[in-house]
Amino acid sequence: MKVSELGEFGLIELVAEIAAPTQTRKTPAGRNLIIGIGDDAAAWRGDAGVQLVTVDSFIQDVHFSLDITPWWEVGWKALAVNLSDIAAMGGLPRYAVVSLALPDDTEVSDVLALYQGMTGLAQEFGVAIVGGDTSRSPQVALNITVLGIIQNHAENMLTRSGAKVGDKVAVTGHLGAASAGWEMLAKKLHFDAGTNARLKEAFLHPHPRIAEGKLLLECGVKAAIDVSDGLVSDLGHICRASRLGARIDVDAVPVDPAVRTGFGEKALELALSGGEDYELLFTGDAGVIDRITQTAECPVTVIGDMVADAENRVALADREGNPFKLPSGGWEHFRQR
Amino acid sequence: MKVSELGEFGLIELVAEIAAPTQTRKTPAGRNLIIGIGDDAAAWRGDAGVQLVTVDSFIQDVHFSLDITPWWEVGWKALAVNLSDIAAMGGLPRYAVVSLALPDDTEVSDVLALYQGMTGLAQEFGVAIVGGDTSRSPQVALNITVLGIIQNHAENMLTRSGAKVGDKVAVTGHLGAASAGWEMLAKKLHFDAGTNARLKEAFLHPHPRIAEGKLLLECGVKAAIDVSDGLVSDLGHICRASRLGARIDVDAVPVDPAVRTGFGEKALELALSGGEDYELLFTGDAGVIDRITQTAECPVTVIGDMVADAENRVALADREGNPFKLPSGGWEHFRQR
Repeated sequence: MKVSELGEFGLIELVAEIAAPTQTRKTPAGRNLIIGIGDDAAAWRGDAGVQLVTVDSFIQDVHFSLDITPWWEVGWKALAVNLSDIAAMGGLPRYAVVSLALPDDTEVSDVLALYQGMTGLAQEFGVAIVGGDTSRSPQVALNITVLGIIQNHAENMLTRSGAKVGDKVAVTGHLGAASAGWEMLAKKLHFDAGTNARLKEAFLHPHPRIAEGKLLLECGVKAAIDVSDGLVSDLGHICRASRLGARIDVDAVPVDPAVRTGFGEKALELALSGGEDYELLFTGDAGVIDRITQTAECPVTVIGDMVADAENRVALADREGNPFKLPSGGWEHFRQR
Repeated sequence: MKVSELGEFGLIELVAEIAAPTQTRKTPAGRNLIIGIGDDAAAWRGDAGVQLVTVDSFIQDVHFSLDITPWWEVGWKALAVNLSDIAAMGGLPRYAVVSLALPDDTEVSDVLALYQGMTGLAQEFGVAIVGGDTSRSPQVALNITVLGIIQNHAENMLTRSGAKVGDKVAVTGHLGAASAGWEMLAKKLHFDAGTNARLKEAFLHPHPRIAEGKLLLECGVKAAIDVSDGLVSDLGHICRASRLGARIDVDAVPVDPAVRTGFGEKALELALSGGEDYELLFTGDAGVIDRITQTAECPVTVIGDMVADAENRVALADREGNPFKLPSGGWEHFRQR
């Protein structure tokens, strides 16, 4: 059945049913919820701590292609990028509202798959989907807004502007697998089964680093961002916001082993500028970074340091100090590439 | 200059500058704001009252046409529809995040006009624009999420499900002028100068009924919705959510005088199903309604009552009791009309 046959209100009823389990009273979000989907606004009992809000759009043939990303994964990823932004502040996600635009001839079963992917991730992190909006559009477009909180009363959080000269630059997990997964799927490349599976998983099912963001904040980190545009581009955001420069030892960058297997010499470039890894990139003094490497349940790698630089550059060099030139920059909308 | 020449980050800087005055410390929203535009998420000091969130999309050639609605007004209207949803809960709007998708060849000056329209309305209601997202897209699409609060501690609010049998049905202001304005602009009709001005103003510059929503809540109203899809369609939402029916005296409906002047016999139809008036439609017992008509600074008109009806119908009749048949229904996405 097409959504044009079901109509807007029929569609809203169906998606509300899929999202209902996210409003379970087993989560803090669900317990405080007063009104979920179906009124002019959603409502919940607030608390006096720091509130967070972030929004990201996920537009067909701009942010994703249905040839590469199936409907279920479109829902998962559209929510994941928002949760990752909350992680990058050191916060916990609580509520999501979903604005969904669809062509008339979209299959209802595809929309349901999208919502199932989204609610799958929401349930994993205790996020209640409490409202939204559906409308007609020439292409599929998802806009998700996520509300979160920071669980401390000192108004501390992870910001792009919190880096200091002499801070170490570190990153969680491994880099490059998401963009390598995209290349593999787009160009129909085939590697060994393990590499195929790892790259596909990294691209289609990113896991926001919520627990790690909370840990960074608890350990005293002040500056962080999530790796969405690409390591170098995102570190550039920290540099500009903190009015500093950064030096990266490219030999220290934790390139995902599957990317090395599949892409050889190009692996480092994918790790530096590929984007969509949704790892946390952060800075802190040596003591802070030590506490994190000892406590975190994921790999944490020091890849460089923050330096004074009036031009806020990210300088890349190998272990011997030879400058490393990156072929391309990070992702930027509207720019001819 | 086109946005493709300026690039995403240049554009974000420009719109952040336009939105900056909305973050003034003269408003409660601005005073509590910790981080505005430019980080992974916006952050503010919360309070323990009831929190509200609503989202609406505003998509070119679906919700608006640039032939009829200029850029400045696109910004104004996209925010107004969200503020109206907060009004319909009895809440006060506080923060907005704006997701903006644009074609590459959009003129930067047009985007600035859009943002100026939006910030104009935001400043009128003390709303801080604290973040957002920009991306490339085949057509202009705005997605605005508004956060609000309810200023009482009893968790009372205006909902669609709060109507009771015997409640009077009432509406603020006059109806039909927005859709009449759309017809006038789309079909290039001309009336006398006063009628032209009133209809154009109603369509292009709707004023959300924030003060009135707060008053309704204070006076004891339990059920309300804003008139966005059309009076009959929106009353249908209250009927279904409250599991009741409604009877409307079409002779009592406050048709905007300019609509009568411009559209004669068609005026009542525009008032009943035109939509986009953003007036508040609500129910309450006679005493509650009396208190409101005596206190409100805008017209308030009783147009019918809520009745028991298992099919949750909205029945229309004239003063003599003759049924009134409406040629068309309210707005619904995906439905062939």
